[in-house]
Amino acid sequence: VAVDAMGGDLAPAAAVDGAILAAERGIPVVLVGDRDRIRACLGARDLPVVHAPEHIEMGESALAAVRAKPASSIAVALGLVADGRASSMMSCGHSGAITVEAVRTLHSQDAAHRVALAVSLPRLDGGRLILLDVGANVDSRPEHLCEFAELGVAWARTRGVAAPRVGVLSNGEEPTKGNAVVRATVEALEARGANHVGQVEPGPALEGACEVLVCDGFVGNVAIKAMEAAVALVTRSVGAESPAAVHGGGLLLGVQGVVVIGHGRASAVEVCAAIQLAHRSASAGASPTDPPARGA
Amino acid sequence: VAVDAMGGDLAPAAAVDGAILAAERGIPVVLVGDRDRIRACLGARDLPVVHAPEHIEMGESALAAVRAKPASSIAVALGLVADGRASSMMSCGHSGAITVEAVRTLHSQDAAHRVALAVSLPRLDGGRLILLDVGANVDSRPEHLCEFAELGVAWARTRGVAAPRVGVLSNGEEPTKGNAVVRATVEALEARGANHVGQVEPGPALEGACEVLVCDGFVGNVAIKAMEAAVALVTRSVGAESPAAVHGGGLLLGVQGVVVIGHGRASAVEVCAAIQLAHRSASAGASPTDPPARGA
Repeated sequence: VAVDAMGGDLAPAAAVDGAILAAERGIPVVLVGDRDRIRACLGARDLPVVHAPEHIEMGESALAAVRAKPASSIAVALGLVADGRASSMMSCGHSGAITVEAVRTLHSQDAAHRVALAVSLPRLDGGRLILLDVGANVDSRPEHLCEFAELGVAWARTRGVAAPRVGVLSNGEEPTKGNAVVRATVEALEARGANHVGQVEPGPALEGACEVLVCDGFVGNVAIKAMEAAVALVTRSVGAESPAAVHGGGLLLGVQGVVVIGHGRASAVEVCAAIQLAHRSASAGASPTDPPARGA
Repeated sequence: VAVDAMGGDLAPAAAVDGAILAAERGIPVVLVGDRDRIRACLGARDLPVVHAPEHIEMGESALAAVRAKPASSIAVALGLVADGRASSMMSCGHSGAITVEAVRTLHSQDAAHRVALAVSLPRLDGGRLILLDVGANVDSRPEHLCEFAELGVAWARTRGVAAPRVGVLSNGEEPTKGNAVVRATVEALEARGANHVGQVEPGPALEGACEVLVCDGFVGNVAIKAMEAAVALVTRSVGAESPAAVHGGGLLLGVQGVVVIGHGRASAVEVCAAIQLAHRSASAGASPTDPPARGA
């Protein structure tokens, strides 16, 4: 797993510490970034390092930064995946820049398809809910949400779900509920013969109404961040420790390679979880980046 | 406070029990709905009842239901407010039908303005965050979000905040972040000279970045429901009791009267909290339904 050591608010310390934890669990890692700063964090530890002379800051414009910094830690790490020298890549850096660079370096599976960032959330019934898009795009159209459904179904299948049900994230469950994009997406899924359950609210989704829940990337990103903020509010207000993040990291679906995007504020333990997600995804018998099944 | 006894999944029992709790705390209430069913729930208790022969089910189309059932418990309760026989109205029923009926019965403050459903959330710093719209509209345009900002600022002022800061709910804080509606709203707020802080993510909003946070009603409703679902997931997964709802109920801003919409699944305690919100809002020196301040 190529680990972008420069990404995230706590980089490089949290990224390096997380990589050390992952290595202790038997996951082969390579750290990518400023060699001197990484070695300072590593101390006496011996992990492979690949130098990258540049890194992209969180506040930069994604497109401009990718163009201006061809030797960023993100670009170098993705290059290792493209060259087959790493199975996968994990970064807690600028998600927009990672997405743009991943499409450029690894290419999308299908030029006609958008990529999407997906997270796997625990459900109350013990299953998992794949939610996408949580931020690779904004202002997506119904046809994009149908593509997200195909990507999500393909990922769910690699995790052993034989017939994943697709829901469309909504403010209500009746066919009249949702905004214009939601209603058109449900109609399009129906027309494609998808295995879908129509509009689904967040509560029923986490209770087990579906395995794949699609939404526009703006809506999904706000929903995930609202979940995390509410959990932090409730746990801190009762004086408890904040629990681990709601999800271990987002998997970028639709590119030819495994790319995991971790939280910008990820701790070492959360970085390790995101590296594990990358490793698991790359090791899965069926790659999550297989071409999506039609009719999903 | 006119309480719609027929609204909500647990009606009339939860609504009646909640009204009893509110009455015990000194709030004058009147129950509106099927007289016989309400009296059966009341038992030996003596609370005023106004009969309404019809009630609107959650699955009905809002517009069709309001037209077909002019004597619904929602319509009768709102009529009591319009006639001055009640200070305010609270219902856990069909939020779309309540909104449509409220605009029809109480009239909007300004025909050119949309109404919005607002909730007040606790912030980590001890302040309150007014979030709107959480479901009165979907597919709102930037000019509507600017109106929501005015309505939210007016409500915040009645709660003693001298100079409420307005944020626009977003997936990131930089000016390039957000979807098209978010970016156009920030530009419009700037052009109007509003006291705004631009794009705000859910976490910083709950930490105190602003007092008023505006969004499209679809996005806001999904965000609120995502918060509640995540809190339920975390509390149940650690075996704890679910905490009380994240908010006590939504206040419908922009109509000439106080209308509170409670959770569809509200318990008696939550119904009582929503009745208290209605009572407090109606008693506030400056009514939250005063014409919104310009330049908000």
